[in-house]
Amino acid sequence: MNKYDLVIKNGNIVIPKVGVINADIGIVKEKISAIAKNIEVKEAARVIDASGKYVFPGAVDSHFHIGIFRPMDEDAKSESLSAAWGGVTTICSYFRTGKNYLNKSGPYKDIFPEVLEKSKNSFYTDYGYHITIMNPDQMNEIEMLVSEFGVSTFKYFMFYKMLDLTGAPGSDKYLLLNTSYDLGFLYNYMKEVARVYERYRDYGRISLSIHCEQPEIINAATQYVRQHESGNSLKDYSDARPTFSEKMAIREVEVLVSQTKCPVNLLHLSSTDAVEAGKEVVERHPELNILLEGTLHHLGLSNDIKYGRLGKVNPPIREREHVEGLWQAVIDDDIKTVVSDSACTSKMIKEGDIWTSLAGFGGTEIMFPLLLTDGYRKRGLSLERVAELTSYNSAIYHDLYPKKGTIAIGSDADLAIIDLDKEKEVSVETLHSAQDFTPFEGFKYKGWPVCTILRGKVIFENDKIVGQPGDGQYVKRPVKYHYKNEFSL
Amino acid sequence: MNKYDLVIKNGNIVIPKVGVINADIGIVKEKISAIAKNIEVKEAARVIDASGKYVFPGAVDSHFHIGIFRPMDEDAKSESLSAAWGGVTTICSYFRTGKNYLNKSGPYKDIFPEVLEKSKNSFYTDYGYHITIMNPDQMNEIEMLVSEFGVSTFKYFMFYKMLDLTGAPGSDKYLLLNTSYDLGFLYNYMKEVARVYERYRDYGRISLSIHCEQPEIINAATQYVRQHESGNSLKDYSDARPTFSEKMAIREVEVLVSQTKCPVNLLHLSSTDAVEAGKEVVERHPELNILLEGTLHHLGLSNDIKYGRLGKVNPPIREREHVEGLWQAVIDDDIKTVVSDSACTSKMIKEGDIWTSLAGFGGTEIMFPLLLTDGYRKRGLSLERVAELTSYNSAIYHDLYPKKGTIAIGSDADLAIIDLDKEKEVSVETLHSAQDFTPFEGFKYKGWPVCTILRGKVIFENDKIVGQPGDGQYVKRPVKYHYKNEFSL
Amino acid sequence: MNKYDLVIKNGNIVIPKVGVINADIGIVKEKISAIAKNIEVKEAARVIDASGKYVFPGAVDSHFHIGIFRPMDEDAKSESLSAAWGGVTTICSYFRTGKNYLNKSGPYKDIFPEVLEKSKNSFYTDYGYHITIMNPDQMNEIEMLVSEFGVSTFKYFMFYKMLDLTGAPGSDKYLLLNTSYDLGFLYNYMKEVARVYERYRDYGRISLSIHCEQPEIINAATQYVRQHESGNSLKDYSDARPTFSEKMAIREVEVLVSQTKCPVNLLHLSSTDAVEAGKEVVERHPELNILLEGTLHHLGLSNDIKYGRLGKVNPPIREREHVEGLWQAVIDDDIKTVVSDSACTSKMIKEGDIWTSLAGFGGTEIMFPLLLTDGYRKRGLSLERVAELTSYNSAIYHDLYPKKGTIAIGSDADLAIIDLDKEKEVSVETLHSAQDFTPFEGFKYKGWPVCTILRGKVIFENDKIVGQPGDGQYVKRPVKYHYKNEFSL
Amino acid sequence: MNKYDLVIKNGNIVIPKVGVINADIGIVKEKISAIAKNIEVKEAARVIDASGKYVFPGAVDSHFHIGIFRPMDEDAKSESLSAAWGGVTTICSYFRTGKNYLNKSGPYKDIFPEVLEKSKNSFYTDYGYHITIMNPDQMNEIEMLVSEFGVSTFKYFMFYKMLDLTGAPGSDKYLLLNTSYDLGFLYNYMKEVARVYERYRDYGRISLSIHCEQPEIINAATQYVRQHESGNSLKDYSDARPTFSEKMAIREVEVLVSQTKCPVNLLHLSSTDAVEAGKEVVERHPELNILLEGTLHHLGLSNDIKYGRLGKVNPPIREREHVEGLWQAVIDDDIKTVVSDSACTSKMIKEGDIWTSLAGFGGTEIMFPLLLTDGYRKRGLSLERVAELTSYNSAIYHDLYPKKGTIAIGSDADLAIIDLDKEKEVSVETLHSAQDFTPFEGFKYKGWPVCTILRGKVIFENDKIVGQPGDGQYVKRPVKYHYKNEFSL
Repeated sequence: MNKYDLVIKNGNIVIPKVGVINADIGIVKEKISAIAKNIEVKEAARVIDASGKYVFPGAVDSHFHIGIFRPMDEDAKSESLSAAWGGVTTICSYFRTGKNYLNKSGPYKDIFPEVLEKSKNSFYTDYGYHITIMNPDQMNEIEMLVSEFGVSTFKYFMFYKMLDLTGAPGSDKYLLLNTSYDLGFLYNYMKEVARVYERYRDYGRISLSIHCEQPEIINAATQYVRQHESGNSLKDYSDARPTFSEKMAIREVEVLVSQTKCPVNLLHLSSTDAVEAGKEVVERHPELNILLEGTLHHLGLSNDIKYGRLGKVNPPIREREHVEGLWQAVIDDDIKTVVSDSACTSKMIKEGDIWTSLAGFGGTEIMFPLLLTDGYRKRGLSLERVAELTSYNSAIYHDLYPKKGTIAIGSDADLAIIDLDKEKEVSVETLHSAQDFTPFEGFKYKGWPVCTILRGKVIFENDKIVGQPGDGQYVKRPVKYHYKNEFSL
Repeated sequence: MNKYDLVIKNGNIVIPKVGVINADIGIVKEKISAIAKNIEVKEAARVIDASGKYVFPGAVDSHFHIGIFRPMDEDAKSESLSAAWGGVTTICSYFRTGKNYLNKSGPYKDIFPEVLEKSKNSFYTDYGYHITIMNPDQMNEIEMLVSEFGVSTFKYFMFYKMLDLTGAPGSDKYLLLNTSYDLGFLYNYMKEVARVYERYRDYGRISLSIHCEQPEIINAATQYVRQHESGNSLKDYSDARPTFSEKMAIREVEVLVSQTKCPVNLLHLSSTDAVEAGKEVVERHPELNILLEGTLHHLGLSNDIKYGRLGKVNPPIREREHVEGLWQAVIDDDIKTVVSDSACTSKMIKEGDIWTSLAGFGGTEIMFPLLLTDGYRKRGLSLERVAELTSYNSAIYHDLYPKKGTIAIGSDADLAIIDLDKEKEVSVETLHSAQDFTPFEGFKYKGWPVCTILRGKVIFENDKIVGQPGDGQYVKRPVKYHYKNEFSL
Repeated sequence: MNKYDLVIKNGNIVIPKVGVINADIGIVKEKISAIAKNIEVKEAARVIDASGKYVFPGAVDSHFHIGIFRPMDEDAKSESLSAAWGGVTTICSYFRTGKNYLNKSGPYKDIFPEVLEKSKNSFYTDYGYHITIMNPDQMNEIEMLVSEFGVSTFKYFMFYKMLDLTGAPGSDKYLLLNTSYDLGFLYNYMKEVARVYERYRDYGRISLSIHCEQPEIINAATQYVRQHESGNSLKDYSDARPTFSEKMAIREVEVLVSQTKCPVNLLHLSSTDAVEAGKEVVERHPELNILLEGTLHHLGLSNDIKYGRLGKVNPPIREREHVEGLWQAVIDDDIKTVVSDSACTSKMIKEGDIWTSLAGFGGTEIMFPLLLTDGYRKRGLSLERVAELTSYNSAIYHDLYPKKGTIAIGSDADLAIIDLDKEKEVSVETLHSAQDFTPFEGFKYKGWPVCTILRGKVIFENDKIVGQPGDGQYVKRPVKYHYKNEFSL
Repeated sequence: MNKYDLVIKNGNIVIPKVGVINADIGIVKEKISAIAKNIEVKEAARVIDASGKYVFPGAVDSHFHIGIFRPMDEDAKSESLSAAWGGVTTICSYFRTGKNYLNKSGPYKDIFPEVLEKSKNSFYTDYGYHITIMNPDQMNEIEMLVSEFGVSTFKYFMFYKMLDLTGAPGSDKYLLLNTSYDLGFLYNYMKEVARVYERYRDYGRISLSIHCEQPEIINAATQYVRQHESGNSLKDYSDARPTFSEKMAIREVEVLVSQTKCPVNLLHLSSTDAVEAGKEVVERHPELNILLEGTLHHLGLSNDIKYGRLGKVNPPIREREHVEGLWQAVIDDDIKTVVSDSACTSKMIKEGDIWTSLAGFGGTEIMFPLLLTDGYRKRGLSLERVAELTSYNSAIYHDLYPKKGTIAIGSDADLAIIDLDKEKEVSVETLHSAQDFTPFEGFKYKGWPVCTILRGKVIFENDKIVGQPGDGQYVKRPVKYHYKNEFSL
């Protein structure tokens, strides 16, 4: 009988906060069972030779929108497949009631099982859900969502107060709301999340993730910009959702954090203004471990390139100096996680002009290539820091650690084996999302995953997906609460 | 022929920033013509003996609501009479279109002449107007209001976005608005005020005064408090408009100040939270001379006394620790002006309970008594600082200086002669407003005006008003622009 | 009999914090008795026509070194004469025991009467003394110096710990010290000044003025620079006493201020580093009214001009960007007083090279010309601010107000009448100091005093000194303590 | 043949930043070769059963004074033996020329080999040296010390400018100095360390450790306190070296850090003042990774207990509120390392009273017991954080990582096996230092090492030292420079 079901031989193992170690990894069933200098081949049922390669903990793409514009199961299949190609082994996806997703509203105790049901046989990767509370009734379900359904992170969109996803004035019908969705709502929401956090704090960080854009400012700025278009629609869109709308939104949040002591995550910061305001929140509330999140597209794209409406996303792609500011925040360890914020769209459903088309697109598959090329190679970001940004920090802030997020004995054997020298050009053809365009078209990146392992099972190797939809399992969070036996300390 | 029309003999003259001087004041026509050790009685047409008394520059009560709930001319008569009793010689009153005041809307080029017409023969004191811009059309009138109508200060109410004056959800009909009145509106408003300020900055400080309360927070807090009433309705009202709603409003304003470089005045700060947030705005924008304003009632009242709905005002009366915090801000020279925010109401029109009754009341008449008793006597505030808070700073920040605001050669002979030893109890009977109640009922103050002089004319003496409605004139601001000949430098 | 001994007719009177007023000033004996629109000529024993001129309060040059290198009486005569030419009516001069000045040491109760005796018939202007405590015995005399001798400001030189006035290592013999003169001494000194301040705070601000340069840094930097001379000796001297030595000294002082609550004055700031550090002290101790002082030479000179050793002064003349930084601090009202720091030297006694020659020179006579040319004309500084910098603030911070420092009824009739249009080139010949050189040689300034009045007596007019040595009197400070009868409030 | 020379079975492995993992550790020769769930006993030459125990990385006690008062080899033997009992596997000890230690001065190229020679067969634990540069000639040896001798951390004592180790005025003879040892010296020192850091920054952080107490303040305060003794000599000693002397010293350092960009370590912070000032340095210079260090005695003792002169140490033991403040800084991750600052003394050589006796004592042996009892049990500090404070951070800041500082494949097999439930009372008898007293006498701690392993060799087990002097080797630092082959990345 073999001691190990799978052994990764001779790789350079990138262990966050520890360093890069040349060693073997022995896997038994779903867990890492050994990290050792010299695991003998004969002890292994299967051996993968990682000589010259780098073995990262599988990425946790903690900002995703599975099912937002397409049937949930279908979307999960195509997009988690793309993730698997990208070395992502866990997706944390948002869900809310209202239009899009399941196009219905009601209590989560009824709806969330449906979400889980649709997810069940659809994911190539493990997955979790962040839930957006949309009305006072759902607010009463927060504690139940934590304790029963394993949802430990919640979400609030500041612009939904007035705007829909295109940036147009929203209607109550759009979100199927029976209530105002303003800062008063957010205040009550944060009080409740903070209350639940107090109860579960020994197990993790129950938190609220916030999309920070101030819609009243957006409204006024949009009106102005539409009367003064420049010819570069992406630049116009950025001016119409100006960076000080992010700053103001974050300042508003800070006041509510002071008042409620609710742990928050400030999502997809797009500008130096947002970073500056975000750092202030972090410094004023060290005890709450406020998370500042960055995205691949805000780090990888700038609005001097005219992608047009296909590059539309909220918050918008910004000027090059903001991009550099975001990288500096990554280098300085102010931005702690980098995510894809993937929402699979298509040219067709993104119809219209910059003002009317849908926002958002996918990018999960280029997480490592982008960070290794623009971060590691161009800006001296260490491999360890890449592992922190893609996996360790995401897992810690979103209550997946230590099940996910590192390479350690007893942790899930989620691994991304990366060839640092592999070069490839991004195009719709080379990516594996269902999306029929990409704003990253033509970008050359160096450093691509060549093998992805999920809980001990190879799901991607030799330029081929070898996993199945349904290989991915739902992860209840905080893992220290729901999997107490695994993590006895 | 007499050299002086009026001479004030032997008073202790309180000159802001200079000191207290024992001397005589000689007045020719409307102006101060001499300050001298020994003006001979024979040179004077009339002499007032101020021995043992203190001669302050007439107060500038720069926050007033003439005509808000009563006919404008009638209200001006009764309330400016009360002001004259109180040593106030200039009232700066707010005006807006919509319900209350003239109950109409339209362009100010049509409406403001009507305001001036109704004011013309109604005031015992001089007066100016702050104008509230309510829609985009009026916004285009700002420069015209400065250059032609002598209005240099504007106003914005942050809660009008959602609430009316009772704190209930407002309706568009209430303010006769055809537009949203939110932070987007405020942003455009501040851009325009800042633009006009740039053009007139050699003459004064064109500025925007802001009522800082965040209505979304108020809504949520009100809903909560109404389900948890305490028995002290004034305390409940304070909790329903919590101090962090002021803080958040001020932080929102700060972001817009950063963006627009618009000089702002943060009105009637009611809490230590507001003061802290306000100081931050001041420090971050030293070049804009941000004004922090205090009121008589927030300094003189606290919500441990159960005034009930008659004490209702926006922002609310707070706990005693906030009162002490406000006094500290006065002592530290952070709060630069103290005003009455008078809005003459009556028990009858304040009908209902704390949630439904109208907010606001008057207090201009006790400006000196309150500051001299609670400030000078109890907290060591100097007489010079009292003169700065009541007159000098108000005049400087509101573009009345040096016509108003000090005792200097060439300035208007606006004087309040005060007997520091005079003691009186406040009651509806002893005050002279048309208001049929006062929350200050029963308070004993020491230090009352005994004579008020407006541009050289005695309007109050011997416990009697001797002026006439119409003695007061409209003052165009900035005075350095509109009265260039008087102030040639 | 005439009502006024002297009347200044029709001048533009620059009253600090009040404004510029066109009026007449009536003087009776030594005091201002009237400020009035129309004093009749016949009431005056003498009339000076100031039409078209500007009447400033006489300047208070609060940083001076009478007698440091020359016999005290002789120096007082020549330098106060130069001051009178410059519109200065009060000199506050430093005195210490040790070498220079009287070349002796001992208790101030014995020595200070000798200082006063030598001063008695020597000054054209009024004068006061700041005293440098040099040993623990003198430290016990602080309260006596305040209450009996009218000395309310003290001094400490941070570099005397190790260096003499040339910048060379000092010896105990130089200062006739029997004690270390380090931060431990300063700590005890500040404790004692703070203690005495507590007792006299109703009358004024007993304070310690500090020359802030860190000698250990100077020593190290000098050693380095002397091995790397650049050819511009003034630049080398600046590098040898680097700006961070000022910064460090000020930071050290801040810690002691925190500890002792001693009011301090940070003297002759020469660099942006010093200003930044100084502002931090001010902000952290608002209740102590920390004074930041600037000098004429740090504002008027820069080390890109090669004055050589004749421009040597401590702290040194700096680069042009520091000069601009200092002006910005003046504009922003961070630097509150501008002084000459005059120490009359001569080419002869300044023998040697930049490292061995004596530091310091005079400049009191160009106070108004420099500020009016470089400040008012070039940088938009208002006339009122010039009066604050030269007179009002100096008087307030050094306890001379309201006897000195403004133009008000009851104040000393100290006036400087200035012709804003008068242009003159600076040279040794046109100045009236005993000094035989000036680093300002060849500078053209516009705006010169044409008449100086000291306590009602004209001492300078028509390009001629008409006063006498001995016209100037010693002023005991705080004036509110020593002249209680004059200033009853 | 056995695969592993030693296997630690079944321990709870505390891996810094990773977590606590139940697994086995396989050791081959000196290195950790495997961390695995199930290493078979038969593969091991020797097995240690760690069931129920916690396996920490061996502690790095990075502040030590081997040989300061006793012969270096003798002191190394006794004190590293005590360290081995305490789970310490690496000692970083200070060395300087002058009195104490080797009682000689001269170039380090001559003296340091002697130090290494004496150390060679004397240590039970691995060891490194921090070097104190005492004169300009030695300053020129810094780069040589890094590149040839493997010394990457240097030291400066701020009080040596004036004081000796007893707190009495020092003499040049004491330190055999031919130069002043003041801030000017420190400035040059920091310039040179910063220069060398620039050259070696790819390999580590060449840094300067500073003892921050301002001797001029100490002098003045001592003089005062000695005239006002309280009866509690430890309290008096604390007052004589007041906390603001630490604050001032740190502020002085900050200015020099700004100027030179030299990475510094602020040692043995004893007070909240020091922590506050230290945090400011950290925040102002994020790019330099400033280290704040705490000690066992400042965390474990307070001056309300009257230890008398035996508790004398520099900086002194403080009041209980400072102790709590230090713990808070540990909890908040502001203080990053906790060290013993051991200097082996004896009652005899500590003769005299509080003012004349020598300062310092040992404590390395209680590092884990104290942190586990006062930190983990009483204040909720996690085991992971204990491992960071004792090992990981010390190794990172002092250039030992990843050779030392964690439990990872390829790292030295330095381990401390700890029984969290073992309780013992501290006394001279139960400790193993050569010191004949301990201020911790009678303290009961819970959580003691039961086995210590150095590079794979058991040196302590079963309450017995089984290692030999000479087992410990000298570690050249930065390890990434001197052991490039081991750490190829």
